[in-house]
This record gives sequence, structure tokens and C-alpha cells, in this order.
Amino acid sequence: LTSRLPAVGTTVFTRMSTLAAQAGAVNLGQGFPDFGCERSLLQAVNDAMQADFNQYPMMHGAPVLRQAIVDKVAAIYGHRYDVNTEITVTAGATQALTTAILCCVHPGDEVIVIEPVYDSYVPAVTLAGGVPVSVEMELGADGYSVPWSKVAAAVNGKTRLIIINTPHNPTGSVLRAADMQALADIVRGTEVLILSDEVYEHMVYDGQRHESVCRHPELAARAFVVSSFGKTYHVTGWKIGYVAAPAGLTAEFRKVHQYNVFSINTPMQHGIASYMADPKPYLELPAFYQRKRDLFRDGLKNTRFELMPADGTYFQCVRYDKISTQTEAEFAEWLTTEIKVAAIPVSAFYQQGKESGIVRFCFAKRDETLALALERLGKV
Amino acid sequence: LTSRLPAVGTTVFTRMSTLAAQAGAVNLGQGFPDFGCERSLLQAVNDAMQADFNQYPMMHGAPVLRQAIVDKVAAIYGHRYDVNTEITVTAGATQALTTAILCCVHPGDEVIVIEPVYDSYVPAVTLAGGVPVSVEMELGADGYSVPWSKVAAAVNGKTRLIIINTPHNPTGSVLRAADMQALADIVRGTEVLILSDEVYEHMVYDGQRHESVCRHPELAARAFVVSSFGKTYHVTGWKIGYVAAPAGLTAEFRKVHQYNVFSINTPMQHGIASYMADPKPYLELPAFYQRKRDLFRDGLKNTRFELMPADGTYFQCVRYDKISTQTEAEFAEWLTTEIKVAAIPVSAFYQQGKESGIVRFCFAKRDETLALALERLGKV
Ligand SMILES: CSCCC(=O)C(=O)O
Ligand SMILES: CSCCC(=O)C(=O)O
Repeated sequence: LTSRLPAVGTTVFTRMSTLAAQAGAVNLGQGFPDFGCERSLLQAVNDAMQADFNQYPMMHGAPVLRQAIVDKVAAIYGHRYDVNTEITVTAGATQALTTAILCCVHPGDEVIVIEPVYDSYVPAVTLAGGVPVSVEMELGADGYSVPWSKVAAAVNGKTRLIIINTPHNPTGSVLRAADMQALADIVRGTEVLILSDEVYEHMVYDGQRHESVCRHPELAARAFVVSSFGKTYHVTGWKIGYVAAPAGLTAEFRKVHQYNVFSINTPMQHGIASYMADPKPYLELPAFYQRKRDLFRDGLKNTRFELMPADGTYFQCVRYDKISTQTEAEFAEWLTTEIKVAAIPVSAFYQQGKESGIVRFCFAKRDETLALALERLGKV
Repeated sequence: LTSRLPAVGTTVFTRMSTLAAQAGAVNLGQGFPDFGCERSLLQAVNDAMQADFNQYPMMHGAPVLRQAIVDKVAAIYGHRYDVNTEITVTAGATQALTTAILCCVHPGDEVIVIEPVYDSYVPAVTLAGGVPVSVEMELGADGYSVPWSKVAAAVNGKTRLIIINTPHNPTGSVLRAADMQALADIVRGTEVLILSDEVYEHMVYDGQRHESVCRHPELAARAFVVSSFGKTYHVTGWKIGYVAAPAGLTAEFRKVHQYNVFSINTPMQHGIASYMADPKPYLELPAFYQRKRDLFRDGLKNTRFELMPADGTYFQCVRYDKISTQTEAEFAEWLTTEIKVAAIPVSAFYQQGKESGIVRFCFAKRDETLALALERLGKV
């Protein structure tokens, strides 16, 4: 059997989580919380099951959930999508991203990705027969930024899609209004589409606002915008997300979606829809995670790791060049097995495995977990 | 935006369910039960949520569920898959089928499908860049059968995959040991793989046994075998299924799977695993549905519809040529809007829309629902 994805191995997240479990390490690698969600969310799902919401929902999502999504996006970003033709509920953000890529990238089309890049985008482009074209983020004193002039230079007649991600995994950087303006300038007058991965939309700190593509009508008119309830509500294992896109793009998305998964878990959709009636959980999320970020950063100041900016997501990147000359993968492995704190090498987010002497920690953990990790990291 | 799937519209199941709802018809179209599942299954999922099984499970499935699947398959079919390398939990059978196709079909490869054919297979083959090659079932006095000599004639050096489905949707026919032998004879010595859709495996009637590919080692060695908990446990909206395949095929499956959906709803996996400890629900399923089938068939004998054999699945096909000369789509629409009983035109399962004067009813309904439908159908 000739592989369709010869370059693909097991994801770095699975590998590091497995190693962490074997080593008995505190797992600050794979991005998921080690605390539970609110009990009322579980109750809402159980209520839906008991009320017999257990058969096929509509292919594009339960109407109550699509309505809740439309209302939330309108309230926060001021863009009101059409509930019937512009929202599709998905089996997590990964399915949304891959389906968006499969529905619009034809063999030979070019897709611009920005490195470091989340590990699912490039295999999805490859599966579609597309050609990934990388532009590297630049790393300055203020942290990572996207060199838009290089993105502009990469666009040509074959470019079908630009994939962006803000807040950005793994760097924790966020795009600003000027970035969105630069992107709009690049795509204006072209047929290039945007795929915007915004799964960390509610994790932006220090009073900054999330520059969703939905805030920028010119971009929203040609974009698939992806988000995830798993990240927002502390239930990464529920695998529910959504894609919002103009009707024409949504129609193509649904053609692939209906034959990829057909539809999404019914009681989870109903439970989340009823839980969303209260905006508090996501409105309070920035403060909730900012406190954890600050606690973690404060602790790291007492170590030999060098802090990088962390404006969004629940990830903190650190430089370790004062500690070791190992590759990132070696260093992350050593941290996991010897220091008993698992991390993710940022090199795993570069197609050519670029080394920057940086690893990523996830701070979506109980305070005790962070304290234990910090104690161990302090010994390095 | 040029479509990747220009031929695809909304599935016939969604269209007929929507029409049924608008018309206030009894919905015997789309295949799902109108009764609930056992309360203990809901309890098991709620227990898993309360026990905080809400974060990412393993990419290929929760170990407890994979073990339960291995044990069940071994107990029933005598084939023991390896729990780590041969079972992958999926977001329903549709995702399993499409992912299997995407992972092994390269652009230009031929895939043999047998018509009438479930509506997701061909779009998935098209998306993979493959070329669907149709072989039509033959319709004799005993019902539908697969003409294996025609399948054999369709195999050539480009053939990558043969997709089978038993028990068969929509015809309700089942493959027998001789069919599996014929298939084995065809693929022996070739590199052709098998994709076997067995979502109705526990719905085979009159004391016949389900000829799973798993019973036939020669076939199992080159097959993806797909099943669905939604069908078996009366929870079609939960979207959980699995694929069992030899390690080499599973490795390729997982490469696509991990970037298509990454993993599957955690509490549902744990709940189903604990519910599977008791084999009664699936062991009693044939008797449960056979009673409904017989009740429905007996009622249809008092109508002008002509019964076709129904050896498996929860579908009953009927001829209507004594009633109307309409096309199947027209007739199904008329039944839905005028007689207030929704059905599915079998022509929707033929790529060229072949007309046979046959529609499909789903009898996975409460006795009262079937009685009401029969009363209405009796007036035709
Ligand atoms: C889908 S597992 C990876 C979770 C995640 O987004 C990350 O750790 O970066
Ligand atoms: C995925 S909706 C269709 C359900 C089904 O299998 C059928 O009705 O044939």
C-alpha cells in the first residue's frame, strides 16, 4: 500500500503525552486542561440525552446550537452570520480545518501557511493534492510577527488559500488590527480565500482584543472562520467546533462535510447550546487564564528559562539556550524523562524542523500542577 | 470557487426528512429509530462525564472501548484483532468509510462499488481523486444479488478497492458464505483491498448469520471493516463507529484520521465501552427487529404494495408498479406529502438514477408509528 501521506508520523502531542505518562511527568505538553468543566455543562448534556436528543441531528448542526453561535459571534464581533446558510457544526476544529481545505483546494493549488504552523494543516493540504507554501514568522524583541510583505510575495495565480491562526499556537502571539489590514490589502482583488483558525479566541490577555476575521467584513466575505467549544469550555475531548463562512463557501464545505462525518453528536450539541445562553463562561475566560499565565510566568522568573511574550492561547514559550545546546526534541524529551515536566518542541511546528532553542509549555492546569511543575523546572 | 464535488447536492435523507417534517408525515425515510435507547447507556455516558473523562482521548480510541470491540468481534466472528494496532474509533461509520477511502485511493485509482450504493461512497472516492466503477446488483425472484462474474470482469491493474455492504442498504439483502468465497477468489493474488460496510451487522433475520469479512481470514487480511454503535444501540446521533483492519492498513488509516478528526468524543467512548460489557443488547437485536419487520410486512400485505425480501438491515423495499407509474422520486414525494408517509426512492442509490419502481421504508419505529403508517399506506 503506497501511502497518501508518506511524511506523516504520530503527532508530537500524542508522542509527548505518551512519554509523559510513561515517565510520570507533569504533562505541560499537549494542550488540554487538567481540571474539569462546570458541572452545569455536564448537566445540560445529560438533560439532552434524557430528553431523547439521541438521533441524527441536521447535517449542518442542531438549529439551537447554530443560533447560539450566530448570536455569540454577533455580540462579540459585530458580524451576524445567517443561521441556515453560514454556520456548520463540526467534530472539533481539526475536522473543520481539514474539511475546509478539502472543499476548496484542488490538486496543484498553492496554500500559504505561516510557520511555526499547527501540525494538521500541511497534511490536509497534501491530502487535497495542494502545494503548501511556507512563510516564516519573524522573531524580534517583541516576539513573533508575520512578515506580510513575504506573504504578499508568495501570492501568485495558483494561490487558493492563506491559512492564519490567531491567537497563535504555539507562539502565543496575536494578530492586531494592522495585521488584518495588511492581509486584506494582499487578498483584495484576488480569488484567494482565507482559513482562520481561531480556537483560542477567548484567550487573549492584558486587555487586548481578539482580532477575529469576523470583525473585518472584507476578510469575512472570503473566509472560513473556525472555533472550538472544547478549548473554550474545558472539554477538549468532546470534539465539537464550528466553521462560519459566507453561504457560497459554506455550500462547498457542506458537500465534503456531509460525506466526511454527515453530522455531529446530538446531545453534546444541545447541551452546549443551552449552556451558551450564559455568556459568563467565555467572558470570564481571559481573566481566568491570565491569572494562570501570570502565576506561571512569575514562577519561571526564578528559573534559568527565558520567558517569551505570551499574549494569547494557553501556551507559554521559553528559550532554554542558557541551559542546554540540545535540539528542541532532545531537550523536551530530557525535560520529560529527567525533570518530569513534559513540553512540546516548537521545531515540530516547522516542516523542516527549524531549531530556535524554544519549547512550549501549556499552562491550562490547576494551580497545584503549575506549582509542582515550577518546582521541578526551578531545579534545572 | 470551483467545486471539488460538483455533482453533490443535499443527501436524499436530509431532503426527505425535511419534507416529512414540513408535511407532518410519518417519517419512514431516513434510517433512524423513533424510540429511545436503554437508560443504562445514557447513565454510563453521564457517569463518564461526571468522572471527568472529558479531555482528549487517545487519537485511535479509548483503550477500554478498543478492548471491548476486540472482545466482541472475537466472540461473534472468531477473529481477534490487535487492540493497539488494528482498531480505530471513528466519528461514526461515515467518517470511517471516507477516511478509509482517502487513505488508500490515489488519484486515478479505480474503486468498484456495487449499485444500489450508499450515497457517501462515490463522493468520497471522487474527493480522493479515484474513479468509481459501478457493478449493478441483479434483481431476481429471490431479490437482489451481486453478480460476482461482473465484479471479476471489472477488476484490472488500476483497481485499488472493492466496497461491499452487508447487510445491504437499501435492499436489505445479505451476502452469504458463497458470496464471500467468490469475492476471495476475485482478489486472491491481486493488490485489491476491501472496504466492508457492516453497520447493520446485528440486523440479520430468520436465523441466518451475518457473513462478516472478519469470518474470512483471507478477506480480513486485506479489509477495512466498518461498524456503527449508533445503529446497534439506537443512538444514531452519537456518531461513534469504528474500523478494524490489519496493522498495515490501520497505520495508513490513522495518518488521515489524526488530521481529519484527531480523536472521538471521550465520554461517549467510555460510556459505550462500559455498556458493551453486557452482550444482551446486540444479541437480542435480531429478534427485536425481526418482530418489527414481520409486523410491518404483515400490514403491507393488506396494501397494494408488493413486498420484496428483507433479510437484513431495518429497511423494507416495496414495488409500487400496481399503484403508480411515477418515478421513484416523484412517488416518494407524493407518498410523503399526500399519504403522509415518507419513503426513500431507491433510484437515489444509483449514480445514473436508475428507475426500478421501488421505494424503501425504515421499520425501526415504535409499533404505534408502524401501525399509523400502515393505516395510511392501506388507503393508497
Ligand atoms: C489535537 S491534540 C493537540 C492539542 C493542541 O492543540 C496542542 O497541544 O497544540
Ligand atoms: C446518515 S443519514 C442516513 C441514514 C441511513 O443510513 C439511511 O437512511 O440509509
